[in-house]
Amino acid sequence: MTGWLAIAGLGPGDAALITPEVSAALSEATDVVGYAPYVARVGAREGLTLHPSDNGMELKRACDALKLAAEGRKVVVVSSRDPGVFAMAAAVFEALEASRKWQDVAIRVLPGVTAMLAAAARTGAPLGHDFCAINLSDNLKPWPVIEKRLRLAADADFAIALYNPRSTSRADGFGRALDVLREAGCGGRIVIFAHAVTTAKERIETVSLKDARPEMADMATLVIIGNSATRRVGRFVYAPRRAS
Amino acid sequence: MTGWLAIAGLGPGDAALITPEVSAALSEATDVVGYAPYVARVGAREGLTLHPSDNGMELKRACDALKLAAEGRKVVVVSSRDPGVFAMAAAVFEALEASRKWQDVAIRVLPGVTAMLAAAARTGAPLGHDFCAINLSDNLKPWPVIEKRLRLAADADFAIALYNPRSTSRADGFGRALDVLREAGCGGRIVIFAHAVTTAKERIETVSLKDARPEMADMATLVIIGNSATRRVGRFVYAPRRAS
Repeated sequence: MTGWLAIAGLGPGDAALITPEVSAALSEATDVVGYAPYVARVGAREGLTLHPSDNGMELKRACDALKLAAEGRKVVVVSSRDPGVFAMAAAVFEALEASRKWQDVAIRVLPGVTAMLAAAARTGAPLGHDFCAINLSDNLKPWPVIEKRLRLAADADFAIALYNPRSTSRADGFGRALDVLREAGCGGRIVIFAHAVTTAKERIETVSLKDARPEMADMATLVIIGNSATRRVGRFVYAPRRAS
Repeated sequence: MTGWLAIAGLGPGDAALITPEVSAALSEATDVVGYAPYVARVGAREGLTLHPSDNGMELKRACDALKLAAEGRKVVVVSSRDPGVFAMAAAVFEALEASRKWQDVAIRVLPGVTAMLAAAARTGAPLGHDFCAINLSDNLKPWPVIEKRLRLAADADFAIALYNPRSTSRADGFGRALDVLREAGCGGRIVIFAHAVTTAKERIETVSLKDARPEMADMATLVIIGNSATRRVGRFVYAPRRAS
């Protein structure tokens, strides 16, 4: 038996957004590895071993998955959304680089619908013009780097997707991020708070940046800050394709 | 019969990357509207009318689709990749804003796997850290805006996904973009040229920015410029999660 490792994205929540490619990999797998809430989205079946783990265990999880694949297992590492955007794919390649003993493992990355695309779709087309994506967690990068990127993104007039805006252990950063953008002259921009999009708990709020409050976001929220031209039409929000 | 309009993304090419949500909408549709090569990806069947149109007809196509839906048809506007990223969704909302007579049409946007996610997955995890996406076409925005955004993106140390890098009518812009990034000190960065990803014509080249040449890209190419920390491990390219 020849093992392999697939790093797969389960999409934002709705099973109708899981690609057939990912479903096929899951149906062939012998082992599923991932953060417990994502592993729980994969149905148990005969011959499939589930390996749920805690948050913050990304490198350990990546090593475990590589080890299983090297032993001949067919392993799917699951991320929610897309595995390549602030998720498990980078962690697997870090583990691979740190210990070349797994360099012959067959690895594939299976893309998914990342949160900002799902949030954009539910609200209109706020990413229809140039944009950027910033992970607001400062667990792995210094906060001043985040502030610098926010200022430059405002200056570039990008729409800005903010991943992981706020958690119980990082309660203050998001409020500071909103302040940075207001100081950069973005107070009039439209902000979308997209909570748990495409799930039963979906809740979407759209406000002006000057009225945005930190507590509108949690870890299940994807925040999109429009560019200077982003506008409403009926219940939708979109970024015009044309810029001057 | 109550009409509706779904703006759907067919993904980058491989049918295994079309979401079940999009497949379901196509199976219920009476009409499919879009740029001819994308409409050709939808199979003909009894009861389905295909409406292919030329490139550059986005607003006309959006109006045609809204009109059909208002008449009670079940209409899917198809984009390749994701409809919300430099594609048809923004054009439909522009058409809706320009003529409010269609304001009661039921509109949904169905997300898809956008080209940069597919290109990233095929090469590793180059979008595993903060990044931006810039449409290099200057049909709808002045070229100096593009250059400014490239300089700010380099300064922010974003990975940079470039959509629509080069066409026969815009042969020079991409070369200038490469020059702007080299002048901004990015000559040592890794550049990925991902041509027709997930199709039979897929071709991927990875070079240093100082060695990148404009003719490596065409309109079917998605270009990703790594950030300053992006590195190779075996045949893969990834952006480490950690930044200093």
